[in-house]
Amino acid sequence: MDYQGALEEVAAAVQAQIGQGQVAQYIPALASVSADHFGMAIADMDGEVYGVGDWTQPFSIQSISKTFSLALVLAHGGEVIWERVGREPSGSSFNSLVQLEYENGVPRNPFINAGALVVTDRLQTLTGDASTVLLDFLRAESNNPNLAFDPSVALSETDHGDRNAALAYFMASYGNLDNPVPTVLQHYFWQCSVEMSCRDVALAGGFLARHGLRADGTRLLPRREAKQINAVMLTCGTYDAAGDFAYRVGLPGKSGVGGGIIAVIPGRCTLCVWSPGLDARGNSVAGVAALDYFTTLTGWSVF
Amino acid sequence: MDYQGALEEVAAAVQAQIGQGQVAQYIPALASVSADHFGMAIADMDGEVYGVGDWTQPFSIQSISKTFSLALVLAHGGEVIWERVGREPSGSSFNSLVQLEYENGVPRNPFINAGALVVTDRLQTLTGDASTVLLDFLRAESNNPNLAFDPSVALSETDHGDRNAALAYFMASYGNLDNPVPTVLQHYFWQCSVEMSCRDVALAGGFLARHGLRADGTRLLPRREAKQINAVMLTCGTYDAAGDFAYRVGLPGKSGVGGGIIAVIPGRCTLCVWSPGLDARGNSVAGVAALDYFTTLTGWSVF
Amino acid sequence: MDYQGALEEVAAAVQAQIGQGQVAQYIPALASVSADHFGMAIADMDGEVYGVGDWTQPFSIQSISKTFSLALVLAHGGEVIWERVGREPSGSSFNSLVQLEYENGVPRNPFINAGALVVTDRLQTLTGDASTVLLDFLRAESNNPNLAFDPSVALSETDHGDRNAALAYFMASYGNLDNPVPTVLQHYFWQCSVEMSCRDVALAGGFLARHGLRADGTRLLPRREAKQINAVMLTCGTYDAAGDFAYRVGLPGKSGVGGGIIAVIPGRCTLCVWSPGLDARGNSVAGVAALDYFTTLTGWSVF
Amino acid sequence: MDYQGALEEVAAAVQAQIGQGQVAQYIPALASVSADHFGMAIADMDGEVYGVGDWTQPFSIQSISKTFSLALVLAHGGEVIWERVGREPSGSSFNSLVQLEYENGVPRNPFINAGALVVTDRLQTLTGDASTVLLDFLRAESNNPNLAFDPSVALSETDHGDRNAALAYFMASYGNLDNPVPTVLQHYFWQCSVEMSCRDVALAGGFLARHGLRADGTRLLPRREAKQINAVMLTCGTYDAAGDFAYRVGLPGKSGVGGGIIAVIPGRCTLCVWSPGLDARGNSVAGVAALDYFTTLTGWSVF
Repeated sequence: MDYQGALEEVAAAVQAQIGQGQVAQYIPALASVSADHFGMAIADMDGEVYGVGDWTQPFSIQSISKTFSLALVLAHGGEVIWERVGREPSGSSFNSLVQLEYENGVPRNPFINAGALVVTDRLQTLTGDASTVLLDFLRAESNNPNLAFDPSVALSETDHGDRNAALAYFMASYGNLDNPVPTVLQHYFWQCSVEMSCRDVALAGGFLARHGLRADGTRLLPRREAKQINAVMLTCGTYDAAGDFAYRVGLPGKSGVGGGIIAVIPGRCTLCVWSPGLDARGNSVAGVAALDYFTTLTGWSVF
Repeated sequence: MDYQGALEEVAAAVQAQIGQGQVAQYIPALASVSADHFGMAIADMDGEVYGVGDWTQPFSIQSISKTFSLALVLAHGGEVIWERVGREPSGSSFNSLVQLEYENGVPRNPFINAGALVVTDRLQTLTGDASTVLLDFLRAESNNPNLAFDPSVALSETDHGDRNAALAYFMASYGNLDNPVPTVLQHYFWQCSVEMSCRDVALAGGFLARHGLRADGTRLLPRREAKQINAVMLTCGTYDAAGDFAYRVGLPGKSGVGGGIIAVIPGRCTLCVWSPGLDARGNSVAGVAALDYFTTLTGWSVF
Repeated sequence: MDYQGALEEVAAAVQAQIGQGQVAQYIPALASVSADHFGMAIADMDGEVYGVGDWTQPFSIQSISKTFSLALVLAHGGEVIWERVGREPSGSSFNSLVQLEYENGVPRNPFINAGALVVTDRLQTLTGDASTVLLDFLRAESNNPNLAFDPSVALSETDHGDRNAALAYFMASYGNLDNPVPTVLQHYFWQCSVEMSCRDVALAGGFLARHGLRADGTRLLPRREAKQINAVMLTCGTYDAAGDFAYRVGLPGKSGVGGGIIAVIPGRCTLCVWSPGLDARGNSVAGVAALDYFTTLTGWSVF
Repeated sequence: MDYQGALEEVAAAVQAQIGQGQVAQYIPALASVSADHFGMAIADMDGEVYGVGDWTQPFSIQSISKTFSLALVLAHGGEVIWERVGREPSGSSFNSLVQLEYENGVPRNPFINAGALVVTDRLQTLTGDASTVLLDFLRAESNNPNLAFDPSVALSETDHGDRNAALAYFMASYGNLDNPVPTVLQHYFWQCSVEMSCRDVALAGGFLARHGLRADGTRLLPRREAKQINAVMLTCGTYDAAGDFAYRVGLPGKSGVGGGIIAVIPGRCTLCVWSPGLDARGNSVAGVAALDYFTTLTGWSVF
């Protein structure tokens, strides 16, 4: 497979989509990013990485961090997390309280905000420092010791975090958080604030293509659990557009409101695409288009 | 009208209901109250007050305070509050987040918790000390300078206040609170913690029967606004049982989970009944029965 | 009380509201009515009737019929109906299926469409001909043997009745209808199609002011049940605006999408107002304004 | 791959699950089936078929028919169907009206009942006889001219079809059905009543593994559309357990309340398993267990 050639063909094909959609507006640190960026990277099974466009420029990973937090909780504490969070698609907007009320404080899956708060709470209990553990893992896997939180993003999220606070207090009222709500919220916001490039994300997610093996060849997760994360990404990874993403792209993926998307072709490679313009459901317009084109071009989808 | 005779007949008639239902369990200070209490008081238009049973024993007024907070907001700031809270029955359980989400953070009415938080927020803005203003008003109207908050209740509410915190942060996310969430919550919990007897409550609510006139004859509210509070009490005052309360009792009323209920016969008198055993919808079993019997006995209902 | 003078003052006061709002559009027979009509009538306790404007012109009573159907079911079969329909405000739009699903096919109250279908089903079981029984009752009480169904309305409702059919089949799936769905729907649509004037409606509703006594002095309902119908009208009679109607008008009332509203001042009189322009919640704009003005003018409200 | 050996190993492994769960109770024709059946079949890319247990015994395919109806609509009429039905997981129970109301009569996906009614309506419009077209297709693909509807099932579904009627009338009220509701319901019920064995289903679904090619080598669907059906099956095919099915089994699948499940390994084979005992979410207990074991045994999942 000529990864570099494929990336360049994809980048050419989606020129018209770049800049479309709207950059996330709810915090200044995201709203000030230009919509015109586009980068894409592929990391193969051997850790070779290919890229196109702005593929080395850091962006705010936001909800992409939820994939890594889930993996770390499973790596540290095993499957007991599934007693506190489901793995069904949410069927409504990504931060809805309605479903949470009807289901007694148990979030539908680990990739909606409520579910990620539960995962963060569990990671905090298991490790004592949920955000630092995540950052250390991402640095190691991407072989990039310069990865860092963006304090301006984390603080800005805190300032605009009333709705996440509502979710957290609501789950606390059902007894589904072990740590104090402000602690959970802080680690959650810091996790979202990590700055990474497409290159970094594609490398960091390599264990999902390698069925659980880390970059150094040690095992992070059993094969079965790595496959299960992919399954949850496919059914729940792109907010209320998971069905459409499966239909168009046909790969496990997880998007963030920073405009990044990580996607996995199990046994082959991990991809990351970034373009800040979002569609109405919070997914990168050019990013989804690029993944769609890539799977059509290569014939690689899980279906 | 022989109020004293009527009260004694009512008390005799509801003996079988006293002790039925369940005392509120969510905070220790309420859970430790015996279910066997029963008291009832009537204050007539001249401020004469009649009572039976435990009518002089203080209890936690809890949500009855919502009636007084609303009156004080209207008295201080007029009808602008209706832009931030509705006056329609909620049609679901009293602290549901669902309706709040579908209606963009505007609570259905001032007598559900979410609505009362907005009222408290407004009273705080108008007066600078929402809970003290309320206590001062209650002391003056009941002519009882010993009325006080119960700190153990207020602190216990705070400790078990995750769900109210969720409601408050949720509304804050829609911009429907002016003061910091912790400030609003504190004043809300202190308001709920006031200890009053049936005698005190009946006297303090006299302005609702007197079409807006305070105990000292000065005007708290225009006649129109006093009637409107009664209307909101009738349609929204007893959680998700407002229709049933109107059907059985036929009076404006507001209940609290401490087991108290205030009810109004406009132009005639204000009543307060207290018995801690609650039905499944949070209203005093013996209290509702007593009001039902009283209106049947006297033929006084608004219908 | 100078009823005639009051009516004329009200009519003058609401001139600016007449023609406002929008005439019901969902069936041609209603959509073709001019919005510029206004009529109002009062029937006192002795059956004297006063009127102003188009008070003798027939209009489609639509949901006002629900009040009479409920009264007839209670008169024929007693309170067992309350096992199959609630009496709580619905808290959402008047034909919502959501609440019905969460409450297992038991409608919230007899004045939303679902509840009225249950009442019609019960009246059909009790009498064998729910619509004729209703028409006969209305003719007798209004002393107008010419009252009739409007077949064009009834057939048009049938043609546009998919949503009511959905409600009926949905309740049937919970076992909450005894008769075949098409039978229930037919009687329901015919009941809605009765043509009456303000004069007719005010007279026909006289039993609600007379605490259950019919025009001929015989008893239709026990005093208690007549009061209870008034209570349900106040809390549930004007769709999702019941709280606001209680707040502004302060009387038991029931509106119809034909633009009519019946209202009751227990012990004094029954009113009917008609003006076809509806507000966003389906109530007559000029009709509500007229009742609001009337209660302000007379000081007669239940609060 | 030794398909026959794998099937026998799977059958041995799930013995403890056979008979668990509860047979569908809502119609007599399904309730009378013994829970103790178990059959499983695999059809490879060349149309060779392997089986174990009761793999040649016909059962009621029920909702498995929804997969074939969708394929036929796409084959006849192309992608315009996606304007009338979504492809997102429903996030609630499989016949809920709630989501339908919030989304204005457009069902979430073609595999919930509401969505299948829309697909049937479209197939009826395209072909003039939706149920016969389906039967003819199934006979041809399974090379079994004896396949037939079970009239007792179809009529029984009609007798117990109030909830589906409610769904259909509800969508009709939004203009989302072209044919008369009774026509759509009839074809829908007949489609569900087809009797097939595991052998028949595995063969009939071969086009899903062959990327759109029929048994005779002609093309039913473009490769892209075949993949898209697989994607919708994965995200929406097993009611409110789609996430869990993806997590455990990791294959596109569609279940029916008759206890059958069809599953696809694109490019390799199509499977059908049948065992009538259902879990709380309507999926075959032993069937899901068998597919789980099979994918673990073979290492074949899409993740």
